[in-house]
Amino acid sequence: MDIETFVQRSLGEWRSQRSAHHLAFAHFEEVRSTITIEPLTIDEPGVLELCKRYDVGPEIVVSPFKMSWEGESDWDEDEVMAGSTILVPVPDSATTGKLLREQGYAETMEAVGSYCLGEDGTFVLTTSYDRAAAEEKIWFATPNLRFRVSLIKTSDGKGVTTASFSSEVRRNPIP
Amino acid sequence: MDIETFVQRSLGEWRSQRSAHHLAFAHFEEVRSTITIEPLTIDEPGVLELCKRYDVGPEIVVSPFKMSWEGESDWDEDEVMAGSTILVPVPDSATTGKLLREQGYAETMEAVGSYCLGEDGTFVLTTSYDRAAAEEKIWFATPNLRFRVSLIKTSDGKGVTTASFSSEVRRNPIP
Repeated sequence: MDIETFVQRSLGEWRSQRSAHHLAFAHFEEVRSTITIEPLTIDEPGVLELCKRYDVGPEIVVSPFKMSWEGESDWDEDEVMAGSTILVPVPDSATTGKLLREQGYAETMEAVGSYCLGEDGTFVLTTSYDRAAAEEKIWFATPNLRFRVSLIKTSDGKGVTTASFSSEVRRNPIP
Repeated sequence: MDIETFVQRSLGEWRSQRSAHHLAFAHFEEVRSTITIEPLTIDEPGVLELCKRYDVGPEIVVSPFKMSWEGESDWDEDEVMAGSTILVPVPDSATTGKLLREQGYAETMEAVGSYCLGEDGTFVLTTSYDRAAAEEKIWFATPNLRFRVSLIKTSDGKGVTTASFSSEVRRNPIP
């Protein structure tokens, strides 16, 4: 599995079920959402802007994509959570690299994560923020079923405050 | 990571939060439970019985243990789900082997699973039943935090009907 194959397999529209476990209080949160992952070209303004910001030559970028989501949480059913972000992989070997993104997961700011593709095809992304760190593991059970375990860690990386699990079922092929 | 270390690290009392995703209906189920994992000796009657049933010499068994659980599901809060099972690892290499158990996960019958310990320390167990197959991945985020992703698959192993995720926080050391 390389990053191009991983992004290629991720393209499309997915119906997601996410369960978050807030560990200190044994609290559950449930979110249903639709996630859309679309390919971008390297000359897309948003891609070039991220490259510029992080001083990365666009020629070393691989398979940039846009991820959009729209969902509702059981915490506040009236609140529709929607957003989108541009993600730009910058490989530094066949299975490792950086992932630039417009908006991070744990905090709504730009972020650079480090990814690594394991032998079993699992994509692992770690990102450090000011006050937290995030770790995401994503893998395919079948071509149409993707799982994701996301951890929000304390900034020293030692404690885990929230663990969440998503099951993503493909709804439509590439939009 | 070998099976002895994995069992050793698992001993104790754990507070578990489990979320099940029933994929066809995008249904969620939440379960809070207490899981206790205690070591057994090889000459324990239940261990010897399982060895006899599966024609396994007790001398090749490693770190047998008993797992007990008591929990409640949000499907029926009055129903207390409690049970226990004996598990007997039978290694066939440093990182692979069989796991004999009194009672399976997907069906309440005896079962033999195959386990494999990955390079990253993840324990993966696959078990085939008459009408289903189960796959469990268990890994430690910290010594006091264990995660488990369990899949119930159709018997041909191709489709996934239920995916569940458990966060297990250590409450007490070995009881």
